[in-house]
Amino acid sequence: MPAPAELLKWIDASSDAFIARLAEAVAIPSISGDPAFRPHVLRMSDWVNAQLQAVGVTTKQVDLGTHVMDGQTLPLPKAVLGRIGNDPAKKTVLLYGHFDVQPASKSDGWETEPFVLTEEKDGRLVGRGSSDDKGPVLGWIGVLQWHHETQTPLPVNLVICFEGMEENGSEGLDELVEREKDGWFKGVDCMCISDNYWLNTRTPVLTYGLRGLVYFKINVSGPGRDLHSGVFGRTVHEPMTDLIALMGRLVTPAGDILVPGVDDMVGAADAEELALYEKLDYAVADVEAAAGGKIALSEDKVEVLMGRMRLPSLSLHGIEGAFAGPGAKTVIPAKVGGKFSIRLVPPQTPASVTPLVTSYLESEFAKLGSKNKLEVELLHDGKPWVADWRHWNYTAAMEATKQIYNKTPDLTREGGSIPVTLTFAETLGVNVLLLPMGRGDDGAHSTNEKLDKSNFIQGTKLLGSYLYEVGASKGGK
Amino acid sequence: MPAPAELLKWIDASSDAFIARLAEAVAIPSISGDPAFRPHVLRMSDWVNAQLQAVGVTTKQVDLGTHVMDGQTLPLPKAVLGRIGNDPAKKTVLLYGHFDVQPASKSDGWETEPFVLTEEKDGRLVGRGSSDDKGPVLGWIGVLQWHHETQTPLPVNLVICFEGMEENGSEGLDELVEREKDGWFKGVDCMCISDNYWLNTRTPVLTYGLRGLVYFKINVSGPGRDLHSGVFGRTVHEPMTDLIALMGRLVTPAGDILVPGVDDMVGAADAEELALYEKLDYAVADVEAAAGGKIALSEDKVEVLMGRMRLPSLSLHGIEGAFAGPGAKTVIPAKVGGKFSIRLVPPQTPASVTPLVTSYLESEFAKLGSKNKLEVELLHDGKPWVADWRHWNYTAAMEATKQIYNKTPDLTREGGSIPVTLTFAETLGVNVLLLPMGRGDDGAHSTNEKLDKSNFIQGTKLLGSYLYEVGASKGGK
Repeated sequence: MPAPAELLKWIDASSDAFIARLAEAVAIPSISGDPAFRPHVLRMSDWVNAQLQAVGVTTKQVDLGTHVMDGQTLPLPKAVLGRIGNDPAKKTVLLYGHFDVQPASKSDGWETEPFVLTEEKDGRLVGRGSSDDKGPVLGWIGVLQWHHETQTPLPVNLVICFEGMEENGSEGLDELVEREKDGWFKGVDCMCISDNYWLNTRTPVLTYGLRGLVYFKINVSGPGRDLHSGVFGRTVHEPMTDLIALMGRLVTPAGDILVPGVDDMVGAADAEELALYEKLDYAVADVEAAAGGKIALSEDKVEVLMGRMRLPSLSLHGIEGAFAGPGAKTVIPAKVGGKFSIRLVPPQTPASVTPLVTSYLESEFAKLGSKNKLEVELLHDGKPWVADWRHWNYTAAMEATKQIYNKTPDLTREGGSIPVTLTFAETLGVNVLLLPMGRGDDGAHSTNEKLDKSNFIQGTKLLGSYLYEVGASKGGK
Repeated sequence: MPAPAELLKWIDASSDAFIARLAEAVAIPSISGDPAFRPHVLRMSDWVNAQLQAVGVTTKQVDLGTHVMDGQTLPLPKAVLGRIGNDPAKKTVLLYGHFDVQPASKSDGWETEPFVLTEEKDGRLVGRGSSDDKGPVLGWIGVLQWHHETQTPLPVNLVICFEGMEENGSEGLDELVEREKDGWFKGVDCMCISDNYWLNTRTPVLTYGLRGLVYFKINVSGPGRDLHSGVFGRTVHEPMTDLIALMGRLVTPAGDILVPGVDDMVGAADAEELALYEKLDYAVADVEAAAGGKIALSEDKVEVLMGRMRLPSLSLHGIEGAFAGPGAKTVIPAKVGGKFSIRLVPPQTPASVTPLVTSYLESEFAKLGSKNKLEVELLHDGKPWVADWRHWNYTAAMEATKQIYNKTPDLTREGGSIPVTLTFAETLGVNVLLLPMGRGDDGAHSTNEKLDKSNFIQGTKLLGSYLYEVGASKGGK
């Protein structure tokens, strides 16, 4: 069952009002990662709560307590839970979104004021949070507004969870989901998250997988303090020499992971899976355009796509404690911490990969014959997630996409991580769909973040249509 | 000819006055590396000039022009040139010292106010510049004061060059030396610099060699901007992977330099030279105490000493452009610059070593098969210096040391660089002696810099005695 034509027409007719509402949301600089902006994140929670209430949603703002950031104890922004509809004959869909944003300031290189939504002639709506994730949140609210104003019943029951700490580790959310599993989230049949991006600028996607992550710090120490390389060069074991030797044994320039067993965990793709990648609307030129350089690891599109979607990757990020400034300081740093991370794919988990990494580093360090000390620290981890894209939840989204975009969406897996996806999938035991609104070049965490007006308007229609397709689906329930 | 007993007695009797004068000098925070402190460096030049005039020295303050630091054009502190005595029958000794200091602030971990000279119970005179190099400069002035007050003629003619930019590359000094080669510095027979340290805390040293330096930056670039490791991991050539691979091929954990040809340039030590090192008052425990960790490359004292004094060394300092902060940022840095330096010893020169390094890095990079770009940059260089320690200038200093300390000094080479030494040696064509006043644990560039009272007083006697020994020497002239 497609969405009512009146809804789609109304969305088209409401574009100015939608953009004005998005401007209002963008104007609240709800940066969750900067203590100075915390009051704005709290205010943003109230704003979102009021918007939901105005379109007929029953809400509850949940106090998530406090946390410590940069030495300050700060109140966490309240999560906004919502419910509308309670018809046992209808499916219940859980929607997730977030109303906090990444830091942004003109001095970072923004061409416009980041917290003033600016509509460019080419239709780009430029502003921090436009695409990540205020646009999609307001897309859902737009759909609800029409139903509320026209007193049209929704095709499904909705449960809503909008949070304000997504850009900072979703602090407090895991506990909330666990706590409300049989409370606010009871009876949920499937879930939809609109918080990622198309693979390119042309073709809508449904995303069914995300990589996990283990993030390590290799600490090497020895001297009691930083030493002068003139005085101590070639007299002592230098921590940097040992660390660089270890970091150089983790990954090849071609991207192969040298930690024994890690790459081996992932089986090869069969013909059916290879065909999936072959079909995607994607060229090596797309990755090179996005990277800003002709540096793809392969000329073969399927290989490049699999490197991003179905293989683990190891990146070296940098070194804490070494000399990082400009100029020529002749220091032997006393204690250095090399940072690297591995993106994980099923069946890898942090629990299965971490011991391989640790024991490999320890055995390689032993080979160096150094008198320095090694400590391997796991800073951060998250499991990978892959959903069943043959589920009716995906079928509904696929139908909706065909109606709105007149295209079959690409089925993709993402290279990055959205840990909350796994939390919901595992805790509630439901199929989760990622249904993005924005394009691959939106620059979510970058300067000049934008959401194209057509993606905002068509994307809002898509979210509405998706609910109708779920409502009509014969699967489940 | 030993120094007059009256001079030595007077120096002992003047210790309170000497310490008071050192306190006055330390109280002027003449930090040359911080634009905000430049007025104090200028003031320090005037203070030193006045001190020299007060003890009968004819002086000239030389304007060295301006330079740019942190985007500001700043006046360079005037060098203070001095002359006293013009007897053609006497030798002419050139003295060098500097009156600027390293940065210091309580918040760096100083136990006392860095610019308030604090005399501790154990005799340590704690304060920034106490040992490096205001103490030695005031040592010379103390010697001159007695001759001035007692109207005793000096045993030699003196030419003095005190500068205020030593801690910041001795800006303007090379040009000054070149300009005054046949002017103010005409007729100089030998030179003495008191601006380094004993090897340990027990035995005085004469230093006859310094290592040179080539400081490189390996730039690897590829992406147009920093990338997200989730999105781009295993799809593109990552500059950090390439850079770490290159940095890992420069030096072994045991200190051997892997750049072909570099270690080979230096011949092995013969039995006579080995005996020199064997004789030095130095234990592996000394280097480990100074380094603050049991991390010496060898248990053999001669090997450790040769590593510091007669072998080149390669240290990895850090990476510019990579992630260096705390936390777990999942970035693929777009452009990274790996910093390392090689300390050089004769017959190595920057001109002979640099092409070896560059072509090695280029050929190793080619082996990586990366699509990123490599650029090898030489940031900074200086030739090594070794003087003839059989010269009468050294013999005089050796005699003076025996008289004052009742010990034969250790003959050492330093691992570090004092580029101005080579400038004077090459431009004026004279034998240069490094005759340190302070101990190996003075912490010249560190927190809680100190000069032991006994080193200040005995060291002042040593400088005076040295002049008498030079005056009586039958060598040269």
